Amino acid sequence: MDSELIYIPTLADMLIAHERIKPYVHRTPVLTSSFINKLTGAELFFKCENLQKAGAFKARGASNAVFGLTDQQAANGVATHSSGNHGTCLSYAAGRRGIPCTVVMPHTAPQAKKDAVKGYGGRVVECEPSTSSREAVFAKVVAETGAEFVHPYNDHRVIAGQGTCSKELNEQVTGLDAVIAPIGGGGMVSGTCLTLSNLAPSVKIYAAEPEQADDAYRSFKAGHIIADDAPVTVADGLKVPLKDLTWHFVRNHVTDILTASEDEIVEAMKLIWKRMKIVMEPSSAVPLATILKNPEIFAGQRVGVIITGGNVDLDKLPWQ
Amino acid sequence: MDSELIYIPTLADMLIAHERIKPYVHRTPVLTSSFINKLTGAELFFKCENLQKAGAFKARGASNAVFGLTDQQAANGVATHSSGNHGTCLSYAAGRRGIPCTVVMPHTAPQAKKDAVKGYGGRVVECEPSTSSREAVFAKVVAETGAEFVHPYNDHRVIAGQGTCSKELNEQVTGLDAVIAPIGGGGMVSGTCLTLSNLAPSVKIYAAEPEQADDAYRSFKAGHIIADDAPVTVADGLKVPLKDLTWHFVRNHVTDILTASEDEIVEAMKLIWKRMKIVMEPSSAVPLATILKNPEIFAGQRVGVIITGGNVDLDKLPWQ
Repeated sequence: MDSELIYIPTLADMLIAHERIKPYVHRTPVLTSSFINKLTGAELFFKCENLQKAGAFKARGASNAVFGLTDQQAANGVATHSSGNHGTCLSYAAGRRGIPCTVVMPHTAPQAKKDAVKGYGGRVVECEPSTSSREAVFAKVVAETGAEFVHPYNDHRVIAGQGTCSKELNEQVTGLDAVIAPIGGGGMVSGTCLTLSNLAPSVKIYAAEPEQADDAYRSFKAGHIIADDAPVTVADGLKVPLKDLTWHFVRNHVTDILTASEDEIVEAMKLIWKRMKIVMEPSSAVPLATILKNPEIFAGQRVGVIITGGNVDLDKLPWQ
Repeated sequence: MDSELIYIPTLADMLIAHERIKPYVHRTPVLTSSFINKLTGAELFFKCENLQKAGAFKARGASNAVFGLTDQQAANGVATHSSGNHGTCLSYAAGRRGIPCTVVMPHTAPQAKKDAVKGYGGRVVECEPSTSSREAVFAKVVAETGAEFVHPYNDHRVIAGQGTCSKELNEQVTGLDAVIAPIGGGGMVSGTCLTLSNLAPSVKIYAAEPEQADDAYRSFKAGHIIADDAPVTVADGLKVPLKDLTWHFVRNHVTDILTASEDEIVEAMKLIWKRMKIVMEPSSAVPLATILKNPEIFAGQRVGVIITGGNVDLDKLPWQ
């Protein structure tokens, strides 16, 4: 996988991204809960990307990719494959720029996800729920439209965009000891590494992953990428594997990867809803689940916790 | 009801309240949703008291009452009757001051409400679910403890405290045309009237009420207080009637009272959860429900919407 040259985004790329995307994203608030602090013995600062445009941090990376295109590059629009927040957020960003956006997703994806893409003006093209079908359909879309491919996470423009989240967090909270974010493909964690390794190198970076989709954890311990085929977890944003670019950041800058069980994730999710009064996805609860499970690591520390998104089906909550 | 002299709280009382309670309450954020703005044709600014301490605006009035007591007055603690947020918030405030708090509530009240009072250190005394039992049990509690009674809303200290919410809103949002809040007993609406009639008299004040508990609406139209016995509505914070002090403010300063059906309330609640990613109570959804129902009143205007609380049973959501 290292046979091709890859471009590693730099601090400058992240700073440029932040200026570029400011008109299109929120500087999201940081919330605290004295109840949860008492429970964990740590001081937790929740960076609320569930309150981000389109309901997820992925609006940052998608906006950076879309608004970084020249007019000529943008003319044919953008395309991606994603049945999650990246598709919705790419559609949002393209809609703001006024260019076409095509999202390839399996016909089995929830109607709400398809509607979300369409709601921002994007087009949904359905494929079979297999990697081969997705790749074939996506190649056809790109061939027909000439659209610019924006990968959900293994893209330097996307990682630079995601890095703007922890830039804000580091400005909003002084004296952070650690930051923890959920890890799936590693886009948010990579952006966090990019930013903090440059701007606040003493801050430790942790990644949190479901036990049932712990390929990043096993990759980290093994020293090379391990990709699972189709992990099953309530944290449906975290099923995808690391790729070369995100592996670069995880390998070099992450202190540790912690895991939590399905029950622990749902419990932490409900705790946040109940005590902090915010709607967030199961994926976003994984960091708190791992903090509750490993209090000795975080006790007495000031910890940034990234709440990555809030797009959840209110009719199918995981505790019901 | 006007035979006794009543003390009407003043602007000075509200300003003193704000200084007094600052260490104990949050200056809650104001959120916006471009989607809901498009839907309504208005610019809505949601003042998020669901993110307040103890999960409701009532932490303001309760803190003002508790911290305004002299040490001598405070020595015997405070007491109230409430199966809702006021009981929880009075317990919270008393806990912060380190004085006893007793809350009388029917034994039929949800266990979660009893636990919330106890969670902040308060004592729950149960009565039968009737007005006569409540009054008898409450009188006994006061006789035994000598506790200071803090009424949920018909109390000048409580109203002055609730008024601090719209003081903040008026500082956070420039050029408001109107503010709308749910109405039950009228504590929040009275505080809003107290503050805005002095600090921003051009801002129109609307109250929003469930059709199925529309006693304030009928009082407003009739010109005198009408109290219903036991209205049934999903907006369980809004079942109580106006009293002399809150009627004073409603009669003199409210532009209109608007009502919404149960379905409209639940629909608005779900819309806010889905789009704004916040957990709030059915009561808090009544203002948006009435705005969606009466777009012509609010079109093109800058409207403050008070989200009064977030203490909802996550296992019994009204759309399920």
